[in-house]
Amino acid sequence: MPETRVVLVGPKNEGNIGAVARAMKNFGVSTLVLVDPCPVGDEAYKRAMHGADVLARSRTVGSLDEALRDADLVAGTTGITTKSEKRFRRISVTPRDFAARVAAMDGTLAILFGREDFGLLEEELERCDILVSIPAAERYPVLNISHAAAIVLYEMFEGGETHRPREASGAEKEHLHSAFRELLIATNYPRHLRGRTNIMFRRLIGRAVPSKWEFHTLMGVLTRATKTIRRGKK
Amino acid sequence: MPETRVVLVGPKNEGNIGAVARAMKNFGVSTLVLVDPCPVGDEAYKRAMHGADVLARSRTVGSLDEALRDADLVAGTTGITTKSEKRFRRISVTPRDFAARVAAMDGTLAILFGREDFGLLEEELERCDILVSIPAAERYPVLNISHAAAIVLYEMFEGGETHRPREASGAEKEHLHSAFRELLIATNYPRHLRGRTNIMFRRLIGRAVPSKWEFHTLMGVLTRATKTIRRGKK
Repeated sequence: MPETRVVLVGPKNEGNIGAVARAMKNFGVSTLVLVDPCPVGDEAYKRAMHGADVLARSRTVGSLDEALRDADLVAGTTGITTKSEKRFRRISVTPRDFAARVAAMDGTLAILFGREDFGLLEEELERCDILVSIPAAERYPVLNISHAAAIVLYEMFEGGETHRPREASGAEKEHLHSAFRELLIATNYPRHLRGRTNIMFRRLIGRAVPSKWEFHTLMGVLTRATKTIRRGKK
Repeated sequence: MPETRVVLVGPKNEGNIGAVARAMKNFGVSTLVLVDPCPVGDEAYKRAMHGADVLARSRTVGSLDEALRDADLVAGTTGITTKSEKRFRRISVTPRDFAARVAAMDGTLAILFGREDFGLLEEELERCDILVSIPAAERYPVLNISHAAAIVLYEMFEGGETHRPREASGAEKEHLHSAFRELLIATNYPRHLRGRTNIMFRRLIGRAVPSKWEFHTLMGVLTRATKTIRRGKK
């Protein structure tokens, strides 16, 4: 993972600055640089919530050059993209593609977010090594800057690891399937339908990816039903 | 793509409501339902920007039940997830996983976002077929609700489509859940465990997204088991 620096260029709304600080805290990014921002006051801190420390440690600079000092890669975000190769200045990648590209990067990555109304200016875009554009509805593709930041940082964070509960093992799942087969037999399920019903159950469970706990619980329900039926029949 | 309905449960900050409306507009989702919200005024419209029409057409209801009417799949978002299998109520999928699962869904999908401070209450979470949790920093995993909405809707927008058979409707799934409850009763399943076992089953089915055919088949197995048990007991 690169050392990530979020650079807001000419933000005009302090609430947005605070909201970006919060999103940064949510995704474990702590370096915020503000280029020629509006005053930062109570509203910014209110919106930052537990990201207040990110905001408090943010650095304000007078020029983009200063904000980009020592950056190894400069990424710009833009709401306007193009499919035309002629307008190469606007050719961009998606946040997911971007996250994949920078995941293994060392050094310092600066991600620029532009003004609420005009975004990044042409000469600012030209400073960027890579442009990131968030796929959105054609009728209104311009996101709030804190939403754009949240999505880009989320993709970078998500590129890391995710957590899920321990899944049932293959052997455990086979026990479950055999318990299901037993239940079909116990209920005298039509013989010619058993094969496909077993497969239906296998596919359903395959898609659900049960945890160990879910596996044990469902197993309990099925075997209990089969036993109850067999006891009743005696 | 499902018909998507965003449901904000007990939002306390009108600015957030407006920001959610904007994110919806960005990602082409237009149905917004507010359950017992704070008053919606100028600040909400200011933040909605070009999503003002989404906000203007939003519906305010007094209860979650009303908001979920006719929904075929109910997704809840939670900032608190778990690695513990015992705390199964909190087992969740990532937004990306969620987007992939619902991409080919027909019918109506309701996505719930909870209160800014307390999220969704336990009984609200229990109404959900599937939980979505955004991977975030352990130190501060709680996102602003408009950021959470932007990320989930972005993933759905970004998620390409795949083809899957017609899914069971919400009403059909409720039949399935009640058939499962009946089976627990018929097998004399320990009373104090029934609640959580029912929820386990709901979540499993929610994640699997059964087709109509799978639904009818599984329904057949469960009701057959219950009937066989009852006949045996006479």
